[in-house]
Amino acid sequence: MPTVYILNGPNLNLLGQRQPEIYGSTTLADVEADCRALAQELGVEIVFFQSNHEGAIIDMIHEARQNAQAIIINPAALTHTSVAVLDALNTFDGPVIEVHISNVHKRESFRHHSYVSLRADAVMAGFGTHGYQLALRHAAKLVA
Amino acid sequence: MPTVYILNGPNLNLLGQRQPEIYGSTTLADVEADCRALAQELGVEIVFFQSNHEGAIIDMIHEARQNAQAIIINPAALTHTSVAVLDALNTFDGPVIEVHISNVHKRESFRHHSYVSLRADAVMAGFGTHGYQLALRHAAKLVA
Amino acid sequence: MPTVYILNGPNLNLLGQRQPEIYGSTTLADVEADCRALAQELGVEIVFFQSNHEGAIIDMIHEARQNAQAIIINPAALTHTSVAVLDALNTFDGPVIEVHISNVHKRESFRHHSYVSLRADAVMAGFGTHGYQLALRHAAKLVA
Amino acid sequence: MPTVYILNGPNLNLLGQRQPEIYGSTTLADVEADCRALAQELGVEIVFFQSNHEGAIIDMIHEARQNAQAIIINPAALTHTSVAVLDALNTFDGPVIEVHISNVHKRESFRHHSYVSLRADAVMAGFGTHGYQLALRHAAKLVA
Amino acid sequence: MPTVYILNGPNLNLLGQRQPEIYGSTTLADVEADCRALAQELGVEIVFFQSNHEGAIIDMIHEARQNAQAIIINPAALTHTSVAVLDALNTFDGPVIEVHISNVHKRESFRHHSYVSLRADAVMAGFGTHGYQLALRHAAKLVA
Amino acid sequence: MPTVYILNGPNLNLLGQRQPEIYGSTTLADVEADCRALAQELGVEIVFFQSNHEGAIIDMIHEARQNAQAIIINPAALTHTSVAVLDALNTFDGPVIEVHISNVHKRESFRHHSYVSLRADAVMAGFGTHGYQLALRHAAKLVA
Amino acid sequence: MPTVYILNGPNLNLLGQRQPEIYGSTTLADVEADCRALAQELGVEIVFFQSNHEGAIIDMIHEARQNAQAIIINPAALTHTSVAVLDALNTFDGPVIEVHISNVHKRESFRHHSYVSLRADAVMAGFGTHGYQLALRHAAKLVA
Amino acid sequence: MPTVYILNGPNLNLLGQRQPEIYGSTTLADVEADCRALAQELGVEIVFFQSNHEGAIIDMIHEARQNAQAIIINPAALTHTSVAVLDALNTFDGPVIEVHISNVHKRESFRHHSYVSLRADAVMAGFGTHGYQLALRHAAKLVA
Amino acid sequence: MPTVYILNGPNLNLLGQRQPEIYGSTTLADVEADCRALAQELGVEIVFFQSNHEGAIIDMIHEARQNAQAIIINPAALTHTSVAVLDALNTFDGPVIEVHISNVHKRESFRHHSYVSLRADAVMAGFGTHGYQLALRHAAKLVA
Amino acid sequence: MPTVYILNGPNLNLLGQRQPEIYGSTTLADVEADCRALAQELGVEIVFFQSNHEGAIIDMIHEARQNAQAIIINPAALTHTSVAVLDALNTFDGPVIEVHISNVHKRESFRHHSYVSLRADAVMAGFGTHGYQLALRHAAKLVA
Amino acid sequence: MPTVYILNGPNLNLLGQRQPEIYGSTTLADVEADCRALAQELGVEIVFFQSNHEGAIIDMIHEARQNAQAIIINPAALTHTSVAVLDALNTFDGPVIEVHISNVHKRESFRHHSYVSLRADAVMAGFGTHGYQLALRHAAKLVA
Amino acid sequence: MPTVYILNGPNLNLLGQRQPEIYGSTTLADVEADCRALAQELGVEIVFFQSNHEGAIIDMIHEARQNAQAIIINPAALTHTSVAVLDALNTFDGPVIEVHISNVHKRESFRHHSYVSLRADAVMAGFGTHGYQLALRHAAKLVA
Repeated sequence: MPTVYILNGPNLNLLGQRQPEIYGSTTLADVEADCRALAQELGVEIVFFQSNHEGAIIDMIHEARQNAQAIIINPAALTHTSVAVLDALNTFDGPVIEVHISNVHKRESFRHHSYVSLRADAVMAGFGTHGYQLALRHAAKLVA
Repeated sequence: MPTVYILNGPNLNLLGQRQPEIYGSTTLADVEADCRALAQELGVEIVFFQSNHEGAIIDMIHEARQNAQAIIINPAALTHTSVAVLDALNTFDGPVIEVHISNVHKRESFRHHSYVSLRADAVMAGFGTHGYQLALRHAAKLVA
Repeated sequence: MPTVYILNGPNLNLLGQRQPEIYGSTTLADVEADCRALAQELGVEIVFFQSNHEGAIIDMIHEARQNAQAIIINPAALTHTSVAVLDALNTFDGPVIEVHISNVHKRESFRHHSYVSLRADAVMAGFGTHGYQLALRHAAKLVA
Repeated sequence: MPTVYILNGPNLNLLGQRQPEIYGSTTLADVEADCRALAQELGVEIVFFQSNHEGAIIDMIHEARQNAQAIIINPAALTHTSVAVLDALNTFDGPVIEVHISNVHKRESFRHHSYVSLRADAVMAGFGTHGYQLALRHAAKLVA
Repeated sequence: MPTVYILNGPNLNLLGQRQPEIYGSTTLADVEADCRALAQELGVEIVFFQSNHEGAIIDMIHEARQNAQAIIINPAALTHTSVAVLDALNTFDGPVIEVHISNVHKRESFRHHSYVSLRADAVMAGFGTHGYQLALRHAAKLVA
Repeated sequence: MPTVYILNGPNLNLLGQRQPEIYGSTTLADVEADCRALAQELGVEIVFFQSNHEGAIIDMIHEARQNAQAIIINPAALTHTSVAVLDALNTFDGPVIEVHISNVHKRESFRHHSYVSLRADAVMAGFGTHGYQLALRHAAKLVA
Repeated sequence: MPTVYILNGPNLNLLGQRQPEIYGSTTLADVEADCRALAQELGVEIVFFQSNHEGAIIDMIHEARQNAQAIIINPAALTHTSVAVLDALNTFDGPVIEVHISNVHKRESFRHHSYVSLRADAVMAGFGTHGYQLALRHAAKLVA
Repeated sequence: MPTVYILNGPNLNLLGQRQPEIYGSTTLADVEADCRALAQELGVEIVFFQSNHEGAIIDMIHEARQNAQAIIINPAALTHTSVAVLDALNTFDGPVIEVHISNVHKRESFRHHSYVSLRADAVMAGFGTHGYQLALRHAAKLVA
Repeated sequence: MPTVYILNGPNLNLLGQRQPEIYGSTTLADVEADCRALAQELGVEIVFFQSNHEGAIIDMIHEARQNAQAIIINPAALTHTSVAVLDALNTFDGPVIEVHISNVHKRESFRHHSYVSLRADAVMAGFGTHGYQLALRHAAKLVA
Repeated sequence: MPTVYILNGPNLNLLGQRQPEIYGSTTLADVEADCRALAQELGVEIVFFQSNHEGAIIDMIHEARQNAQAIIINPAALTHTSVAVLDALNTFDGPVIEVHISNVHKRESFRHHSYVSLRADAVMAGFGTHGYQLALRHAAKLVA
Repeated sequence: MPTVYILNGPNLNLLGQRQPEIYGSTTLADVEADCRALAQELGVEIVFFQSNHEGAIIDMIHEARQNAQAIIINPAALTHTSVAVLDALNTFDGPVIEVHISNVHKRESFRHHSYVSLRADAVMAGFGTHGYQLALRHAAKLVA
Repeated sequence: MPTVYILNGPNLNLLGQRQPEIYGSTTLADVEADCRALAQELGVEIVFFQSNHEGAIIDMIHEARQNAQAIIINPAALTHTSVAVLDALNTFDGPVIEVHISNVHKRESFRHHSYVSLRADAVMAGFGTHGYQLALRHAAKLVA
């Protein structure tokens, strides 16, 4: 069964607890649960991970090189600052889907640039936590 | 039954006939057919439109103010140059979803900026023609 | 009797119906009626026109070369993007007055630049729909 | 009777004596006389002031906080350089109208930016000295 | 017999009637006549077209995909602003020659950038209306 | 007894009377009184001065060269525009502390640059009027 | 008793041991001791923390959401590069005070921009290690 | 008989031997021969020159002031870097035609700017070595 | 006898007393004395003036319009910030010579731009106080 | 025996396994082995370290302050983003050599800037893994 | 007797023959003669040189290291483009005076930047050919 | 035996005689001697050349096309300004190594950009004159 890594960057552990006017009130655990349900329906396996440490995200991308057929990543703040995450993703051969919960293009200008988009095959922003499911649906279509 | 306008900008009438390495070989008629099928399943009505004329796109957005609950728009080249389309969308109250077939962030730098994203609630790029279906699914979720 | 063309760009047909906090609730028909009344008082004839199509605006400017002694233009979104409208105005010999209903200098930075101002003899912004009347008064002073 | 302060920045004391190809031959005294005549007709009182000293302009804006319902200001060179004048105007609650005799947008690029426009409710440029009268007419409409 | 489309953008219908110090006094009809004469000599057919509407230019480029072996285009103002024309030309497989009557590099800085040049095989500026004939000569050499 | 000059730039005479959401409701007289009380406690003398005239501020800085061991300056709008104030401070040998009541880094981008910071030994912003007391405490520590 | 977190970014563990011409010779342990003494006097509790790992700083900010009424942070190099620290601080509701030992505005230009200042209520730079005490005094005033 | 100088900048001596995918396989001697043949047909004399030394190109432009009625110049790399060649051309009164073999606008961004275009009457790029003949044809038309 | 105004901007009253490594130890009184001596030799009259107030400098330039044949100005800090001084000089018809004691081009980048140079006929920097004499010699040559 | 720390940034653990067209097929273990062999020949000791965690790299640089006479660092992605690594290196007194396997100047523009180069004594790029040996040779020359 | 090298860059051999509205009608031979006369009066020897070849200018600067106490240089076009001339001047220990005949600050923006000014002790522009004499007078004062 | 051209740009003939704090005291003759010795050891032949004339450097690169297997080049000032040298190197098929004696990245910002790096296979800076030997070692490894 194909495997999809779903990786989440810094501060996403607080999803649903902070700035609900931007991010809504769904928690990351809710997102994971919804993804697991949908994954089963789509016939894919998922690994779901969050860290506030850039290095830990990189380590997981390296692990994905062995175990996964696709990566869905919400790099959060690392989107805009981490060449290291970009380089890690550059070592991965399968599809990469970049997800942002809010429409970053309507926020501060430093959030308009994404290093990750230089590698990602597809990018989505502003779909709320529903975006994870749409991304998973797309990943499944590509690798299943 | 809620209605979704699906609007397509310049040159998309050639979809499937030009630069297949970027845009794939699905035609716009195929996209429309797929959307109609999915719309039925989701319980929404769609109006599907394409024009090479900025003014015609604007006229349709104005029409949508009366008839539609949501707009899905692939503004194509107008994405990067048309303040007039942005202003038209600013007069629309429902959700607006911006769709790009290719990942515009990996192409020429003038394609990285979108006037439409300043209004759109959600933006997706690089999902191929499958993106239309994900967008429709999201629109239906919001307005159905 | 001298003639003044009053040209209105994209989305101004919705004046009074959209974003009243920016543009007020006067409609374009109201503006036209007020201008006609004032024109009579000032002894000038007016042609009042609106289009969402850049090409139609250009065609009208060409027509004004034959028929008009002055042009008042609210280019709306075309202000910021249309070299073609600038070039059309460059072919007109009489005075050109550029009018914006809102103070564009307080809005998004892309609204701070005007191609039309490179040709206009006079520019006004932020006078609401009253600006049309002040502009007409000025045009009449110049050509009557 | 409502009062309008009409403030004039550096070098405007030489109006009519310098660079007539840009500014015409009307003197500032002529402008004041024309404004007084129109003010009477419109039922407003005016205070007319010019200084080459930024500090004196600021002091007058502070005075206007007590005495005036509106400010018309031709900040001249201070337009482009004075955050202090902007801050002074930010302390004033009534309408502020910014007037430039020439069309500054057609001149050197450093004249395209105005700090004052960040506060002004309305801005006009290129109407010659007639602009003062149009501005006064607008101010009267707002505060009378 | 190979066919060459010669397309002309906004305001070129006024050629010879406006700003003769920049564009000379030859009219677009003169240009067409000269091109027809030369085309016969060179053994190519031409389709000669002008529009003030971006969309109409795009439609003609799409038509050229079926009918023409080469395109000569003077995009006029669209040169600097139209990604849509660029995208249309990107769908055309034969040679594209971009012609400007004046030397745009000596004019305002916004005229120094050309979206069309990103696709054109060859670009010429400042040859006056003679440039059309040189371009036609080159097109004939390539496709005849 | 060491002397500290506390200099205040344009519009600070209105402190407490304007934009209380940014600057609070303490007046400049209150600030002076608080500073005098603390100065006594700290064993320093203070000279407290405000002007809307750049030249007067410069004159006071020159005076401080003779009389003061330290300068605390809230340059207000001059922060961002006055090389002359910077040059005046460059002629002073003792410590210079720059104080802003609001956090200028969160306001308009032209408020992010400070000429004065190129000379100041220490800079503080956003501490409200309490900042004057912290600055005085620091000045006293350095010169007492 | 209210609690204040005092967080220190990368390389501050070497304070007093490196570049004394910029940072002085006080060690971070000295700073902590001085803060503890003052905290007692002011009636607040402090948590004092340093890490070279961005992720560890973020984790501590998350912890502060539960335990602290205010945060004092010297983000060191992260000031200029870490959107993740900014986002973490955005999840904290109490006052945030940003402290820099040296006057960063006089150093390399990349040190002039601070992501943290976009969230901080107050910012200070150049007060040496004394700045920690002034910041603590201010925090105590706000939360005690 | 009118004389045209045809000047060629650095590295053009290797034409036909290097990077044929950009410049084709015609040598500079071939170009010269073709130009001589065409010159005879057009009734003009030509002087054909190449150098890798900027100073030598300038010396030849000075010589052309005495001997030539027109200059055709392919400045090669000097296009983008030599104000001295521009200044030399500024001393020449007749027409100047700038020729580039490849379409420089599609290459690296530093090749998009031309100092020579600030003086040239006409500019062409991307016509291959055929461009020399079109330029000569144009020069002959202007000076013959 | 022709008259030359020699105007000196902010902080020049401290010449010889501050930053001698940049400005030397000659005082402004010394400069004036040297200029008076040379003026006599050259047969011109001089008016020598210094102020820290921009407005006072402007007033003197206005006075020079009546009394002087040439202006020598060392605008000091106003060089880089004052459009008002530029505009004042624009009202003067005779030659204007701009003098800087130090070579401003080697100092901070904000000192590289001069508004005054846009009007000055001649500019000199880095000649120390000797520059005043060279400038006076040149002024005398032009107006004597 | 002098000691050289050889530090390697994020993703270098995958050297030889990813993008061999850019980085070649030598693994990091191979590099280490080659360095150890050469170190012995040159009479220096080496510590060889890699981490995907910025904080871990910083910790090692701090350790090197005690143990090493020189640092060779391939900061990988941190080159372009980490002020923290720069600041850490600023605390080290011996020579620092920056090594990049590929010629970063030929890659994306964000790879052209290096924070580390602001501290490094020497920088090399594009020598492949052979660069490590040349760097070690140079380090040995400096510290042995 | 001290020696001053007076070096002249590209195209100055045409002085007096080209663009007299910018450069006047004095020839370079006239300038040399005037300089020789003044040099004798001032008791200095001069070497006067002009070349269109950057390399020749550099060679002469190297020669000046042995023979001259000061250099006066009018780098002409090399001012704006030649780091090599700057580097050559950096090897010279005596005073360097940069002379421009016209006021370069009023011309095209690329003439506003001077590499040579980064080394020159003094810079003058706009004094016409009289500037050479003022420069020589200053050089003599410094080295005689 | 493979041949390596070692080319040196402007002012390097003065190596060891100028600015020893930047470039050290080794002369270019010393460098050549050291290279010859090492070349013999490595089994390669070298041609060693220096010129202050850009054209002469280009001529030598052309010669190298016939005679050399690799080029080592220290372009000195031409690094930053010469597209012509870049274009010449683009005609060379073997490896190109760019050497700078000082770490150019720590010097003036205009020294941070290298045209030559766009072609060079490898770049080194800051290794002093030892860099030539490391470069030669690398060249020998590639071509021997």
